[in-house]
Amino acid sequence: MTASPGLDAPRLASPDLLRAVFRQHAAGVAVITAADGERPVGFTATSLNSVAADPPLVSFGVGTASSSWPVIATAEYVGVHILAEHQRDLAATFARSGADRFGPSTFWRSGPEGVPLLDDVLAWLVCRVVARVPAGDHRIVIAEVAAGDPVGGGRPLLYHQGRFTALRD
Amino acid sequence: MTASPGLDAPRLASPDLLRAVFRQHAAGVAVITAADGERPVGFTATSLNSVAADPPLVSFGVGTASSSWPVIATAEYVGVHILAEHQRDLAATFARSGADRFGPSTFWRSGPEGVPLLDDVLAWLVCRVVARVPAGDHRIVIAEVAAGDPVGGGRPLLYHQGRFTALRD
Repeated sequence: MTASPGLDAPRLASPDLLRAVFRQHAAGVAVITAADGERPVGFTATSLNSVAADPPLVSFGVGTASSSWPVIATAEYVGVHILAEHQRDLAATFARSGADRFGPSTFWRSGPEGVPLLDDVLAWLVCRVVARVPAGDHRIVIAEVAAGDPVGGGRPLLYHQGRFTALRD
Repeated sequence: MTASPGLDAPRLASPDLLRAVFRQHAAGVAVITAADGERPVGFTATSLNSVAADPPLVSFGVGTASSSWPVIATAEYVGVHILAEHQRDLAATFARSGADRFGPSTFWRSGPEGVPLLDDVLAWLVCRVVARVPAGDHRIVIAEVAAGDPVGGGRPLLYHQGRFTALRD
């Protein structure tokens, strides 16, 4: 069905190659939040991972040009939310530049450590940031689990080929 | 549908909480490979991410207790393969302890920089390792795109709640 890999692979410039390869990849969708005093920030991430069990660590990526970065750069705690398949609009709001992300259509409250927590998600964690690792124009944030709830009761939202989608029934 | 988050969340021990939360998360499935002279190693990863565009970087996690780690710990280049939905058996083989991962049922060849490349995948990259970041009992490997092929022609394999699955049609 597919071509055999080898030295005859097409010679795309590396950023284009990376983009084309990851269009084939699918990822769960998360929203990361933090607060700077009274100002909540948040963004949609498809890079959330469980990294290690001992100690319990998660990781996610954030661009240093993103509007959330100045707060994420110094936040002691972050909120990590796994979105359900019915939350496409929420994912789109937290991905759209200039959107009023914590406006009237977003249901949230201030949770442990003052972290903004979104309602109605599949699962959430509050994590303490332990490292921000430079990786080109992004940082990989590593954070340790402090609190959370594996709420459940639904199925996850997915992202694939530039669109939100869902798992097979 | 779901409970509101807050301070009344259940008090699970952190590793159990992390595990329960990430059972709700879905992830694309990749196989990471490398070679130590003639000896190929590889493992199934659900932690593959595109990290940055400038320079083009990927990341994945690997446990320091895993059988692949001694080779990944010193490899200059790694192979990154995005699996298609029909490759559950391949994903299971590369996840099973003690399996003959490069045995007769695995179709592979030596690719650029001597990296073992699996046939018939959705997309592949050969990447040069630029960092191995300590994160508890794991390392986050960061690697720069060197070659690859966004083969396409199929749909990705997913992992959710401890099982392989696929995207909705």
